[in-house]
Amino acid sequence: MAISERSRAFLDSVLNPGSVAVLGASDNPSRIGGRPLSYILEAGFQGPVYPVNPNRPTVQGLTAYPSIDAVPGPVDFVIVALPAAQVIEAVEACAAKGVKACVIFSSGFAEMGEAGAAAQGQLGEIARRTGMRLLGPNCLGVFNAANGLFATFTTTLDRGIPKPGHIGMVSQSGAYGSHLYYLCRLKGLGVRSWITTGNECDVSVAEGLLALAEDDHTETIIAYAEGVTDGPLLMQAFETARRNGKPVAFMKVGRSAVGAEAASSHTAALAGADRVYDTVFRQFGVHRARTTEELIDIAYATTKKVYPAGHSLGLVTISGGAGVLMADAASDQGFEVPPLPEPAQAKLKALLPYASPRNPVDITAQAFNQMDLVSRNMEIMLGEGGYDAVLAFFTSVAGSTLAEPLRAAMREGIRGFEDRLIALSIIAPEAVVKAYESDGMLVFEDPTRALVALRALCRFGESFARRDERPAVEPAAGRLPAEALDERRSKAILEAAGLPVLADRLAADAEAAVAAAGALGYPVVLKIVSPDILHKTEVGGIRVGLGDAEAVRRGFAEILESVRAKRPEARIEGVMVVPMAGGGVETILGVQRDPVFGPVVLFGLGGIFTEVLEDVSLRVAPFGREEALRMIHEIRGVKLLQGARGAPPADIGALADALVALGRFAAAHAGDLETCELNPLLVRPEGQGCVALDALLVGRSPAAE
Amino acid sequence: MAISERSRAFLDSVLNPGSVAVLGASDNPSRIGGRPLSYILEAGFQGPVYPVNPNRPTVQGLTAYPSIDAVPGPVDFVIVALPAAQVIEAVEACAAKGVKACVIFSSGFAEMGEAGAAAQGQLGEIARRTGMRLLGPNCLGVFNAANGLFATFTTTLDRGIPKPGHIGMVSQSGAYGSHLYYLCRLKGLGVRSWITTGNECDVSVAEGLLALAEDDHTETIIAYAEGVTDGPLLMQAFETARRNGKPVAFMKVGRSAVGAEAASSHTAALAGADRVYDTVFRQFGVHRARTTEELIDIAYATTKKVYPAGHSLGLVTISGGAGVLMADAASDQGFEVPPLPEPAQAKLKALLPYASPRNPVDITAQAFNQMDLVSRNMEIMLGEGGYDAVLAFFTSVAGSTLAEPLRAAMREGIRGFEDRLIALSIIAPEAVVKAYESDGMLVFEDPTRALVALRALCRFGESFARRDERPAVEPAAGRLPAEALDERRSKAILEAAGLPVLADRLAADAEAAVAAAGALGYPVVLKIVSPDILHKTEVGGIRVGLGDAEAVRRGFAEILESVRAKRPEARIEGVMVVPMAGGGVETILGVQRDPVFGPVVLFGLGGIFTEVLEDVSLRVAPFGREEALRMIHEIRGVKLLQGARGAPPADIGALADALVALGRFAAAHAGDLETCELNPLLVRPEGQGCVALDALLVGRSPAAE
Repeated sequence: MAISERSRAFLDSVLNPGSVAVLGASDNPSRIGGRPLSYILEAGFQGPVYPVNPNRPTVQGLTAYPSIDAVPGPVDFVIVALPAAQVIEAVEACAAKGVKACVIFSSGFAEMGEAGAAAQGQLGEIARRTGMRLLGPNCLGVFNAANGLFATFTTTLDRGIPKPGHIGMVSQSGAYGSHLYYLCRLKGLGVRSWITTGNECDVSVAEGLLALAEDDHTETIIAYAEGVTDGPLLMQAFETARRNGKPVAFMKVGRSAVGAEAASSHTAALAGADRVYDTVFRQFGVHRARTTEELIDIAYATTKKVYPAGHSLGLVTISGGAGVLMADAASDQGFEVPPLPEPAQAKLKALLPYASPRNPVDITAQAFNQMDLVSRNMEIMLGEGGYDAVLAFFTSVAGSTLAEPLRAAMREGIRGFEDRLIALSIIAPEAVVKAYESDGMLVFEDPTRALVALRALCRFGESFARRDERPAVEPAAGRLPAEALDERRSKAILEAAGLPVLADRLAADAEAAVAAAGALGYPVVLKIVSPDILHKTEVGGIRVGLGDAEAVRRGFAEILESVRAKRPEARIEGVMVVPMAGGGVETILGVQRDPVFGPVVLFGLGGIFTEVLEDVSLRVAPFGREEALRMIHEIRGVKLLQGARGAPPADIGALADALVALGRFAAAHAGDLETCELNPLLVRPEGQGCVALDALLVGRSPAAE
Repeated sequence: MAISERSRAFLDSVLNPGSVAVLGASDNPSRIGGRPLSYILEAGFQGPVYPVNPNRPTVQGLTAYPSIDAVPGPVDFVIVALPAAQVIEAVEACAAKGVKACVIFSSGFAEMGEAGAAAQGQLGEIARRTGMRLLGPNCLGVFNAANGLFATFTTTLDRGIPKPGHIGMVSQSGAYGSHLYYLCRLKGLGVRSWITTGNECDVSVAEGLLALAEDDHTETIIAYAEGVTDGPLLMQAFETARRNGKPVAFMKVGRSAVGAEAASSHTAALAGADRVYDTVFRQFGVHRARTTEELIDIAYATTKKVYPAGHSLGLVTISGGAGVLMADAASDQGFEVPPLPEPAQAKLKALLPYASPRNPVDITAQAFNQMDLVSRNMEIMLGEGGYDAVLAFFTSVAGSTLAEPLRAAMREGIRGFEDRLIALSIIAPEAVVKAYESDGMLVFEDPTRALVALRALCRFGESFARRDERPAVEPAAGRLPAEALDERRSKAILEAAGLPVLADRLAADAEAAVAAAGALGYPVVLKIVSPDILHKTEVGGIRVGLGDAEAVRRGFAEILESVRAKRPEARIEGVMVVPMAGGGVETILGVQRDPVFGPVVLFGLGGIFTEVLEDVSLRVAPFGREEALRMIHEIRGVKLLQGARGAPPADIGALADALVALGRFAAAHAGDLETCELNPLLVRPEGQGCVALDALLVGRSPAAE
């Protein structure tokens, strides 16, 4: 899964070009063609900078050239700040000049109707034909704070040229991307690379993200998108970031119906089911942010670069009430809040008899009169409690008489525990906050926000620590037939793919059915087999619970009679004989195609659970066994598998194996599988496996691709 | 539901006393007995203030008295800042002096084990015996910013004496209450009354809340509690606040298992099921805050005093991306985001051809170059869109060149729409924020936080507008038997209470059963009737689907044989004959006792829905029909009642009537009903009503009360 040549070229040419030209360069630094030039000059970009403007001899003090081909030296990167009508010709000229990448600010493309979309299609075609990479059109640009390349006209930079930091940001929306950058700046977070992709005629958010995941200087990635077109590339980017230990926090909007509609009127991006995005983020360890604050809080928390692989939390408070509130919020976030070991509790009790030493540890406002209480307490919680993260609530820490002694006490208490997340919930002036931060503590005002961010960091750590990588699946050698397959053929194909299906025999006449039943064991079920009949119940094509030879003979005759009456034209291949199966939990396994991410495996309990309660979990295929187990435990109805209402626990391990096999099958047939359903798949008690009682496969015609 | 004499006395004496004494008054203003005196003097409390200290002639410049009875004039209110051991004697002396209320700062009571709890019990007994009201012990005190009564030792007031405002606050936790107060202060919100209740030997959070709900000067109420002991009083307080149009935002902690445990170790408050608290808040229109920020945001938003009874939302943005994000967040909050009417969209399109005029309305950054766009857009959205609330996202509004023109444009656009909620999501300096606020706009940085607060205000408005008040239910004249009642007796009692139950006949012998079956119509069900048998299935006491006289005779004999074999000692009253009922959705209705709030009605779909998925909704009894309908629509499985999977819609109206009847019955028997269950209650297709097929009532012995 190495990065492609094209992506590498994008990364090098867009973020680290040797030379830059500006088409439509303006002398006025507040105009769209003047602003980037002015920023680049102010930031001191090291390579040659060429303004291109046929109407002026100089622009902002530099020699101007009438066209890109008139520029004397080679040009790596071009900023296109021209009216839409001039863009295609200009971009062709750039390609002819050997330019490696352009960013196109111009609007008036796909967002403006069909003619614009056609022009944008031409831009994409130029990029594919020439290998020159294109960012935009209709985007706010890109910057690299490390080398002074500020190829953007966002007014947000008017408040000062950014200093490089650990964050890389990629956003479809320019205005929202600027807003995010500005929030980072206010929070003191350095953004190194900033990429807005706009209409994405060539470079997408996924590719921008992949570039940042590969970039050695980027440590944290923040992304915003309304829709993604290249799901596989996005997953590659996520997996690359995970392997490189880089947290990704993603704001994917259009979650709601009204939001999705607003998104589609705003850009022309493909929708894709929001549930599938949710699944992909979860599956690849990406944090899906729901609010902008949360996104920035998490970016802030990553400055510590500590990602515990566990999620046990210690809570310290000077207010019992705040302790309870934090315990609730920690529980909401899925933290474990285990009590301190008894000996540690005894030590705390000895220090302060009226402390609550369990966890939350309430050291009361007495802590402020007795600062060694704070340091000893932190030491005990981190050392003996062994918590992955500790959050301490001290309410207001204003005034140096409190702030400095508390800081010294905290510093002493956390020394030697640099591998833990230490956060404070305090209200304090900025200088105090900075001082605490410089000692390795994260500072939040609101404790709930602190816990959301800390939990995200622990989830990153858990994801980084995972060894359960996606299996490599080769495309299948043969194609599935491009049609709906009957139960027997569907089961045979799935059985060959390693899925457990109920044994069956095909009987051409009643006596063959009796013989088959005798071999399989009574009671049995008879089902009509016909390529023309998919819904067997509707035509009276099923008889269940047949307990002896006579019942089988009668059932066989009844089925044929009914089917011939109701569907006289149907081709009948015979009647299937299968054993009656029962004693287990009925589940449903399925595969659906997502337009963005490809085959997605679905799991649920079937019936009303799936149809009415929509209690299903999804995973993009393929996936490993640990992922399958997480998938099973995600549904609300999992209790039924764990042995609710007096039933024995079901064989969840066998179910996980079946899900993995189905994921591999779906991935191998990504191109030619339309849908697939095993319904029901009966999960038997532990140790007894699971088995599909019925199955339906639908192949996909090559024309549909 | 008028306020009681005792509560009135509390309100008058605690918040508006004519004179104040301080027991344990100290010269040192940083000590617990010095701090309130110093605050009161600084704030200029108008009545006489008497320090009591046997060891000093003066305290903080005032004449000190050796004991409370040595004080020359009458004393309304006393601050007790004494060691725990001296409290009881002092409080007795206060009562003898005719003091109306005391606040007891002292710790060392119920929070410190059994001896402390006993002493606290004595304090409660003094309050009940003498009528003198007691706040605390172990509390941080109380203040009324309007009259200078600062009977508290919270250090938070060191940062300045509060100015009165519209907020009343009541908190069990002193430290967290101080923290909340401080956050209000930072946000510029005035807190008029602040009450901390600590261990609650007499005055509880509920009573404090009731006082604030009655207080003419309090407009918004914020509360914090870990546990409530007097549920009915709390509900009275909520209902009073609702009737008086006062929003209540409540932080009830101990939601999670670990939080509840921390709460019980912190105070000795009764737990009460958290789901029931949730229910009570929802039922009485109280906003349950999950985070401190949310609590303060909502308090802030109430400064506008606009509570729309609807919840349609208009969204304005200069960034399409932010528009989508807000649409998602609005959807999460349950806002409707309907599109602007077509003519209004056409007007906007004429103003700015590349605007997205639907809703969210994207007026793009062009708005900043063309401010009339902002005012015309607001005018159109409020006038023609008719939205209850509008949120506008302008990202950063720094610098007066932007802030002032935008403010003027907004002011013009919203003129005449003072009944709507207008909020901005902007990043701006405090002075800019204040200026916008002074023009009637709410200002938030984060749009999601704005939407949470706006939605809370709309919910308040919806609750204020409700006419569906709780029915008044008199206690029932007769007591239920203090035992588990068999199905026939249970059904008879419930039928008398107006609940639909399946007709039945009691048959003493087989021929009587046949006659009954003939009268009721075949097929029928037979069930054993015995006061000693509650679980009829276990003893073979039920036969279903009996289609003719012969089957009834055989069934009768089989039941008697089986029951006599399995439970030879059981008294048999006969066999019930009931018609076979089917064709509808099976539900379960129940009543459970909550230790805090009394009888709670439960509704669900029964079976796995109730047991495995816990898909039930609750309401405290009694309640009206609208509330019953809300209760039905709260469960996830409601789709099954609305006609999922091809079934006809069920008679939800009849179901609501049954729930109301059950609520009235439960309320009338609040003292003598232990539990009750109608399981199943079959809800038939629309217009055909519902009927309980089985029922079980358990009466409560008077000793258990």
